[in-house]
Amino acid sequence: MQVAKVIGSVVSTQKSASLLGKKLMVIAWVNTDGSGPALRETPAEIAVDSVGAGVGELVLVSRGSAARKIFPEPNQAIDLAIVGIIDTIDRF
Amino acid sequence: MQVAKVIGSVVSTQKSASLLGKKLMVIAWVNTDGSGPALRETPAEIAVDSVGAGVGELVLVSRGSAARKIFPEPNQAIDLAIVGIIDTIDRF
Amino acid sequence: MQVAKVIGSVVSTQKSASLLGKKLMVIAWVNTDGSGPALRETPAEIAVDSVGAGVGELVLVSRGSAARKIFPEPNQAIDLAIVGIIDTIDRF
Amino acid sequence: MQVAKVIGSVVSTQKSASLLGKKLMVIAWVNTDGSGPALRETPAEIAVDSVGAGVGELVLVSRGSAARKIFPEPNQAIDLAIVGIIDTIDRF
Amino acid sequence: MQVAKVIGSVVSTQKSASLLGKKLMVIAWVNTDGSGPALRETPAEIAVDSVGAGVGELVLVSRGSAARKIFPEPNQAIDLAIVGIIDTIDRF
Repeated sequence: MQVAKVIGSVVSTQKSASLLGKKLMVIAWVNTDGSGPALRETPAEIAVDSVGAGVGELVLVSRGSAARKIFPEPNQAIDLAIVGIIDTIDRF
Repeated sequence: MQVAKVIGSVVSTQKSASLLGKKLMVIAWVNTDGSGPALRETPAEIAVDSVGAGVGELVLVSRGSAARKIFPEPNQAIDLAIVGIIDTIDRF
Repeated sequence: MQVAKVIGSVVSTQKSASLLGKKLMVIAWVNTDGSGPALRETPAEIAVDSVGAGVGELVLVSRGSAARKIFPEPNQAIDLAIVGIIDTIDRF
Repeated sequence: MQVAKVIGSVVSTQKSASLLGKKLMVIAWVNTDGSGPALRETPAEIAVDSVGAGVGELVLVSRGSAARKIFPEPNQAIDLAIVGIIDTIDRF
Repeated sequence: MQVAKVIGSVVSTQKSASLLGKKLMVIAWVNTDGSGPALRETPAEIAVDSVGAGVGELVLVSRGSAARKIFPEPNQAIDLAIVGIIDTIDRF
């Protein structure tokens, strides 16, 4: 999984039936200490929320078939999902 | 999913049977605010349209097995698909 | 899918049974307008041909399980396949 | 698989049921000789431990469906897993 | 598949049962002409050998589920495999 911050959301009326009623969140990847974007120039990525994450929260994001399998069918279009809200990151 | 802008299309006569009759769109990845290409030097990527997206529109793109499962069989060759048309991106 | 140019081929005697009798083509990723390599420094990638593509042709390349499923079994080792020959790319 | 060093851990109360009771470790990718981070600016990645790895140890990390299949169900959210502790890396 | 040179090996006592008795080789990605590392700064990658490749040889490497399916079960942790030894690369 990767660590990201939720920074917005997307509205899409015309979309795959598997995305109906789901929250599409704009996320920004962050460094291990939770600080700002790890890379300046990266394409925007949109993750489907599965844990009630809010804007500004630090979250765990899963990619690929892992993201899809989090949701019951229909779930076909999902390749990125928020799977946890991070309380703390401990570095040693 | 990633955010992209549809910037063209591809004509291919000799291709996998799973691509027959499908719209092959050239896409360009964009930043979270919808502005120009996020990265200057990236290989061209071609996504199969599933929502009637037109040139110039901002779209949601899914990758990997998620892209393939959007379409009924035969769908083998598909690893990138347009799965939604974006109305608005709200950043907070 | 990604756009690539076929620039060579590979000979391998000792290989997975799933690659026997298949054409292993060296490809170079290109930009959306079909011009030279999109990125200077990239590792060489080898795609299995499924459409009779020749050296110098512009092709559509699929990655991952999509590439494997194009071929009947045995097909295990295949993670990159040429799935179409491009006639024209139209940019708007 | 990739070589990484375990550099911390993550606490997450609200998360996918498939992550309950699992150790979520912060990892940093390293070079083939085991030396410091291979890339300065990379997003933080979190791997689920399957071998009792401790902070500071050099480990083998698997990605994608390989990571998920290491664990019995429920395992849906897992896309990165520690699958081995490295004793030595021999370069020739 | 990608082209790599075998540059070493890894010893791991504590690991996934699916890696027991398998040769874990350190690989370095190379350019299409077989010359030195394509990218200077890349994390170390470890591939499981399936063709008896030796150190110094140029090999074909498959990624993801393709790598796993090359091996009989148990094979869960495998996401990178050497699937061929390259005799020659012909560029045109």
